[in-house]
Amino acid sequence: MARFLKKRDKSTGQMPGSLVFLGNQKEEQIRISSMMYNKDGLIRDYKPVPDNKLPDIPEQSDVLWLNIDGLHDTSVIKQVGEKYDLHPLMLEDILNTDQRPKHEDFENALLISMKMLRFRDENNTIETEQISLVIKNNLLLSFQEQAGDLFDPLRNRIRNNKGHVRRSGTDYLGYALMDSIVDNYLNIIGKIAEKIEELEEPAIKASDKNIPSQIYHWKWELKILHRAVMPFRDMLLKMLKLHNEYFGKGIEQFFKDLLDLSQQALESTEIYRDLLSDYYNIYNIGISNRMNDVMKVLTIFASIFIPLTFIAGVYGTNFEHIPELSYPYAYFIMWGVFITIIVIMIIFFRRKGWL
Amino acid sequence: MARFLKKRDKSTGQMPGSLVFLGNQKEEQIRISSMMYNKDGLIRDYKPVPDNKLPDIPEQSDVLWLNIDGLHDTSVIKQVGEKYDLHPLMLEDILNTDQRPKHEDFENALLISMKMLRFRDENNTIETEQISLVIKNNLLLSFQEQAGDLFDPLRNRIRNNKGHVRRSGTDYLGYALMDSIVDNYLNIIGKIAEKIEELEEPAIKASDKNIPSQIYHWKWELKILHRAVMPFRDMLLKMLKLHNEYFGKGIEQFFKDLLDLSQQALESTEIYRDLLSDYYNIYNIGISNRMNDVMKVLTIFASIFIPLTFIAGVYGTNFEHIPELSYPYAYFIMWGVFITIIVIMIIFFRRKGWL
Amino acid sequence: MARFLKKRDKSTGQMPGSLVFLGNQKEEQIRISSMMYNKDGLIRDYKPVPDNKLPDIPEQSDVLWLNIDGLHDTSVIKQVGEKYDLHPLMLEDILNTDQRPKHEDFENALLISMKMLRFRDENNTIETEQISLVIKNNLLLSFQEQAGDLFDPLRNRIRNNKGHVRRSGTDYLGYALMDSIVDNYLNIIGKIAEKIEELEEPAIKASDKNIPSQIYHWKWELKILHRAVMPFRDMLLKMLKLHNEYFGKGIEQFFKDLLDLSQQALESTEIYRDLLSDYYNIYNIGISNRMNDVMKVLTIFASIFIPLTFIAGVYGTNFEHIPELSYPYAYFIMWGVFITIIVIMIIFFRRKGWL
Amino acid sequence: MARFLKKRDKSTGQMPGSLVFLGNQKEEQIRISSMMYNKDGLIRDYKPVPDNKLPDIPEQSDVLWLNIDGLHDTSVIKQVGEKYDLHPLMLEDILNTDQRPKHEDFENALLISMKMLRFRDENNTIETEQISLVIKNNLLLSFQEQAGDLFDPLRNRIRNNKGHVRRSGTDYLGYALMDSIVDNYLNIIGKIAEKIEELEEPAIKASDKNIPSQIYHWKWELKILHRAVMPFRDMLLKMLKLHNEYFGKGIEQFFKDLLDLSQQALESTEIYRDLLSDYYNIYNIGISNRMNDVMKVLTIFASIFIPLTFIAGVYGTNFEHIPELSYPYAYFIMWGVFITIIVIMIIFFRRKGWL
Amino acid sequence: MARFLKKRDKSTGQMPGSLVFLGNQKEEQIRISSMMYNKDGLIRDYKPVPDNKLPDIPEQSDVLWLNIDGLHDTSVIKQVGEKYDLHPLMLEDILNTDQRPKHEDFENALLISMKMLRFRDENNTIETEQISLVIKNNLLLSFQEQAGDLFDPLRNRIRNNKGHVRRSGTDYLGYALMDSIVDNYLNIIGKIAEKIEELEEPAIKASDKNIPSQIYHWKWELKILHRAVMPFRDMLLKMLKLHNEYFGKGIEQFFKDLLDLSQQALESTEIYRDLLSDYYNIYNIGISNRMNDVMKVLTIFASIFIPLTFIAGVYGTNFEHIPELSYPYAYFIMWGVFITIIVIMIIFFRRKGWL
Repeated sequence: MARFLKKRDKSTGQMPGSLVFLGNQKEEQIRISSMMYNKDGLIRDYKPVPDNKLPDIPEQSDVLWLNIDGLHDTSVIKQVGEKYDLHPLMLEDILNTDQRPKHEDFENALLISMKMLRFRDENNTIETEQISLVIKNNLLLSFQEQAGDLFDPLRNRIRNNKGHVRRSGTDYLGYALMDSIVDNYLNIIGKIAEKIEELEEPAIKASDKNIPSQIYHWKWELKILHRAVMPFRDMLLKMLKLHNEYFGKGIEQFFKDLLDLSQQALESTEIYRDLLSDYYNIYNIGISNRMNDVMKVLTIFASIFIPLTFIAGVYGTNFEHIPELSYPYAYFIMWGVFITIIVIMIIFFRRKGWL
Repeated sequence: MARFLKKRDKSTGQMPGSLVFLGNQKEEQIRISSMMYNKDGLIRDYKPVPDNKLPDIPEQSDVLWLNIDGLHDTSVIKQVGEKYDLHPLMLEDILNTDQRPKHEDFENALLISMKMLRFRDENNTIETEQISLVIKNNLLLSFQEQAGDLFDPLRNRIRNNKGHVRRSGTDYLGYALMDSIVDNYLNIIGKIAEKIEELEEPAIKASDKNIPSQIYHWKWELKILHRAVMPFRDMLLKMLKLHNEYFGKGIEQFFKDLLDLSQQALESTEIYRDLLSDYYNIYNIGISNRMNDVMKVLTIFASIFIPLTFIAGVYGTNFEHIPELSYPYAYFIMWGVFITIIVIMIIFFRRKGWL
Repeated sequence: MARFLKKRDKSTGQMPGSLVFLGNQKEEQIRISSMMYNKDGLIRDYKPVPDNKLPDIPEQSDVLWLNIDGLHDTSVIKQVGEKYDLHPLMLEDILNTDQRPKHEDFENALLISMKMLRFRDENNTIETEQISLVIKNNLLLSFQEQAGDLFDPLRNRIRNNKGHVRRSGTDYLGYALMDSIVDNYLNIIGKIAEKIEELEEPAIKASDKNIPSQIYHWKWELKILHRAVMPFRDMLLKMLKLHNEYFGKGIEQFFKDLLDLSQQALESTEIYRDLLSDYYNIYNIGISNRMNDVMKVLTIFASIFIPLTFIAGVYGTNFEHIPELSYPYAYFIMWGVFITIIVIMIIFFRRKGWL
Repeated sequence: MARFLKKRDKSTGQMPGSLVFLGNQKEEQIRISSMMYNKDGLIRDYKPVPDNKLPDIPEQSDVLWLNIDGLHDTSVIKQVGEKYDLHPLMLEDILNTDQRPKHEDFENALLISMKMLRFRDENNTIETEQISLVIKNNLLLSFQEQAGDLFDPLRNRIRNNKGHVRRSGTDYLGYALMDSIVDNYLNIIGKIAEKIEELEEPAIKASDKNIPSQIYHWKWELKILHRAVMPFRDMLLKMLKLHNEYFGKGIEQFFKDLLDLSQQALESTEIYRDLLSDYYNIYNIGISNRMNDVMKVLTIFASIFIPLTFIAGVYGTNFEHIPELSYPYAYFIMWGVFITIIVIMIIFFRRKGWL
Repeated sequence: MARFLKKRDKSTGQMPGSLVFLGNQKEEQIRISSMMYNKDGLIRDYKPVPDNKLPDIPEQSDVLWLNIDGLHDTSVIKQVGEKYDLHPLMLEDILNTDQRPKHEDFENALLISMKMLRFRDENNTIETEQISLVIKNNLLLSFQEQAGDLFDPLRNRIRNNKGHVRRSGTDYLGYALMDSIVDNYLNIIGKIAEKIEELEEPAIKASDKNIPSQIYHWKWELKILHRAVMPFRDMLLKMLKLHNEYFGKGIEQFFKDLLDLSQQALESTEIYRDLLSDYYNIYNIGISNRMNDVMKVLTIFASIFIPLTFIAGVYGTNFEHIPELSYPYAYFIMWGVFITIIVIMIIFFRRKGWL
């Protein structure tokens, strides 16, 4: 299958509204973990829910964060949906991991679906994974295709009560999760940027034949990045316009900050795409310059020695009457002529700037 | 005739408003088939209407789906129009198969015209076909230029009562048909994408002279795709803005999903167009690199052996007085000189990085 | 003078508002013809007005169509303006044939000025001509620089009472004339498109040196087309927005159709412009490929025979002591060496893929 | 200093609001001339104001046009500003000749600043000069850096009472001056267009090495043009939107005409910029074609004669036992072989299409 | 780390809202200096605040300008924030030196953050530094990463009471500081522009192999410039739209002037980016032309002397029966043939235009 177009065909023949997991199973088993806190302290630290028994939505100002790793078992997802009264289309969106990032306001909950990126050093490729957040009062659900350490720093901050997070509700927790995603983008861009800038020198030298395919490789990875970041930015723009009820008034400033960062991420991908095009051009010119060098060497050698060889050939003919042959110093005169021609040619090539 | 501009000239000399079929006849005979169902069960399975006798529009919550394959016989189309009270301009739009996809709200019915694509494996080309939907209360008409199996899965779902389709009205049926069309787009893009990505390796190697014309071929097919998908997307955007009366409130969510998918299809065509341009560049650079290789071989051989041949030529001259000729080891000294020159040249080319 | 910038300098030194003909005289004499009809029948068939005596504007639902061929005699145009009470600036616009297509609502009449195109087969060029329509109640004036057969099919339809035209007023007649213009565009594009697509094969082969100048020629002609179609489309967009009083309510549907067609014409010019750029690229790559072929032949011949010639040269030297010369089979051994070298080189070039 | 960025550094260290002339002095002395007229006749013909004694603003419907040539003497400009009660920032704008064209509504007067262009035939360059108009009731001030004949035709029309100009107020005079500026643009574009089109033939032939630098030169001049015309067009767009009080109602039609012309000028610069890019491409392909020709000649000569020389070399060796040497017709057989090889090679090259 | 993406990773693990300095320490110690004036005179000249003891906000129409050089010591910044009642997010923005330029209206003060540029002559690079302004009634705070002389001319003008500055409030002072920033941009662009235009001649000659990497270098620097100027311009556009309360009515004219200047700066970066692309093209064509020259020389020498050498070779063969060898004038006839061939070849190459 083509790289950008993977999973839709699985669902062909299925009606919209029926729950199908559109992705590759990345976890052995779905694992549900929860964390609970309020502004006074941690009520329950992050640990797996025993027997996947889903906790109730807390009351008052307690915040329950439920994290689901793995999406392949639709029955578990269905159970989560029923427990917390989620719209069937919302569950479908969560399971369809090939979606464009978006936010959707269902009647009693807000869905935010985004892309998390993973950079594989071994083959320099980016892998995309879907992360969905469901925000309700007092409850935040996060769905990941695969367990990861993206949110660990955030969990530590909750534990240590650093920053705003414990003093605020699910809206701030949602923001903090999105902030982790943007951080993830900027980190990946940073890694790619370094790798791209390493191409600068060999591109200028045009010495390595693999440069064009490397440039092309990174262009492709930047496209994958762009496909994650661009709709994320658009989603933030829309969220700021709509003044969603799930977000308190004080939080707008933080979303503007997120928007700035995602804008910066987007601009960076564009700057590096341009840079790769410049590398293409510069490499191309480098090759032409090298070809020129090769041709100059050939031309200089050939233009000097071909006429000389001709002259030698003339005196190698076996005609009976060649007067020069019997001149006593003829051989030395010939050498004089050779050297004169060589000197003239060298001066000629010097003038042309080829030597 | 040029490929993008086919049928308009047929109608020159005809006034707008008169019924003319603008297309190529693709069916022997027009075939009208119908299917009827409501939420309780299937009333009539999909089969041809006997003697093309058109059924009446059902009442209450029954849904009648009438499918017309073949458009060349304007009298039959006219008859359909009269039976179901369709606007003459609507019929004209249905018959003009060279239109841009659009939706048009006539007084008592909604027309949606779209492009269905067919990928011919034998020559790797896309064929375009027009599909028009007319949506009225309780009645949905679908007009195809040619019979096809695009809607078969949908019919099965109606038979087996899977998903929403039997519980909903003509609006949902219309949505489900449009969903089949988008699926069709994504499938075609998937096929093309695979074929395009197969060009990557030979483009990098620049070994196959047919690569440029293949790149050019796929660019053209992507243009045809783009011409179908782009106005389809625009049509969906407009439909969502206008909140058409023919679509119930609950269905908006499904149309947003369609919009997302068509947006994804559009982006994919653009990504693959860019990819083809990258292949162009990479192939071009590959050719330059190969030329460089060729030139290097020539230069190395010529630069080494032309001076040697000159030296040999000098001692092949027939001058009477060439002192070197009579030195006892002159011949071996000459070989020594030859080998020295060869070694120097090889070192020189090594330093240049040509060997 | 430059091709795109022709006539303005004539008017330098003239104040706006004074009547000057800005064009080249294309007719011997201005010829005024008229046609009159209503829904019941043809009142007067299309024929020249005797002595250019201008008829009065008819009453009730009669429609008078006055066609003026030739614009060079400003006194006649002035007379027309006075007879039908046209604004001086309107007359000026009609006479300035170098204008961009536009519609302008003067107090008592609507001016629509457009470009008619003529394709000259003999030199494959497009010629532009201005056509202006003035629409008043019961009167439609059409001004052409030169007599032509563009509107003949329309006249026939009026005669034969085909389509809507006789049942409707000047607004529909205006629409029908604009429809003829769009048809004209699509026909010209069709012709050019065919000519352009004929370049595909020679561009891929890169065999014909005139391809680049032909590509460039068609790019230029497409620009001329674009300059006519683009503002025409924009004009239609504006007319649909403004809901002009000169056009009845029922006619909007027809204008949407015109807009669709002009949009299609515009897209086609853009598609063919892109196509020409692709031809450029493909031709360029073709040349590089041919150059590669040439270089390979040279390299193969030179790399094989230059070393051989060197060896032969060595044994053509006249040193007194060359041991090999007296070996009985030396000559045949030399041939063995030659053949060995040739075989090795051929294997080498085969491996490189050059043979 | 760089060409596009000239004068701002002079003002560094100066506060905005202080009068400094930012330009190069182009006149020996500031010269103030005036002209006065009303609809009944010329009150005062255009001539220098004695001792730069500024006349009073006339009353009723008289129009006073004051033209100031030269801006370097800020005291004179200040005096003008005081006499006619002009805002200090307006004077500053007039003196800053490096501004983008704009119009600015100060409390009691309107400032319009534009660029006048001068085409220097001797070095094919465009020079930019600022022209500022100040429009008040009954008074129009025009400031030029240097005396010129741009407005002479307009003055003649006022003298001879041609067109609207004498019947209208300062608003129409302002329009007429702007019309002269657009005429100036179109004339310059016309000149450049001719020069550019002259490059077509040598670009196709790729015979002249100076073509690329000429293409580049004209691209640069078009950029200068674009920088003058583009903001002028934008200024007109804004003026038409704002319905400025200084312009009577009847004059809007004239401004639309100006807008059309400036739009046309802008499109022309874009068309010629594209044309120059096409020339680049076509020239580039031409060079590749010429290179191909050169290589073919080399390859044909080398591929034919190198093998022949090798054969001759073989029989030039001095081996004692070369059986062929003593065959009586060996020499003639060798010639037969030579001719056969030549014929085969020629057929081979013919088949390749190189001969 | 990649050049465009520097400091964000430091803050990973930090919650938004906590004060962290995101930058490199550029000053030994934070230095706070102040200046105070009103329209009657200078109250306190610019000098360091003793022991960093922060002065109180003055009353009435006195203006206090506090400049902070160095940002690395967050405790000092926090102290400033507490003294003048600044929002914590505002302080965070000031400390995050990797932000995009923006203005943000906090409840009781306006934050404007911009980029100051520094051009390093020694390596032709631009360095970016953040400058933040906080505007309150009677108080203006300016935060710089590093002490600089950018604002010295402004301070002199305050001392000498030149221009508006002493007569106006903090709003005008804010404007004057922003004006210094734009001046800074235009100066840097001016410097870069000069350097870029110096590349024109060597690019046309294509003589220097470093031209492509220099072009690429300046493209990169222009991108850095663009990243500073573009959001600055956008910020001004927004500020003019919002009619911020911190700016008096009379100051709008000055902001329009700033907008014009930043627009001009932006256009200049774009013009020079285009120019660099033109240099790329022209250099590329220059290389092709030079290659052509090289090839011509080779072809001319080889095509003339290879056939001659062949002929000489023929008469160097040792066949026993070569009739020509014994003709008395054969040697001279051979020379005649040589000269004839040379002349013919020269004529041939002349006709081709290669000589």
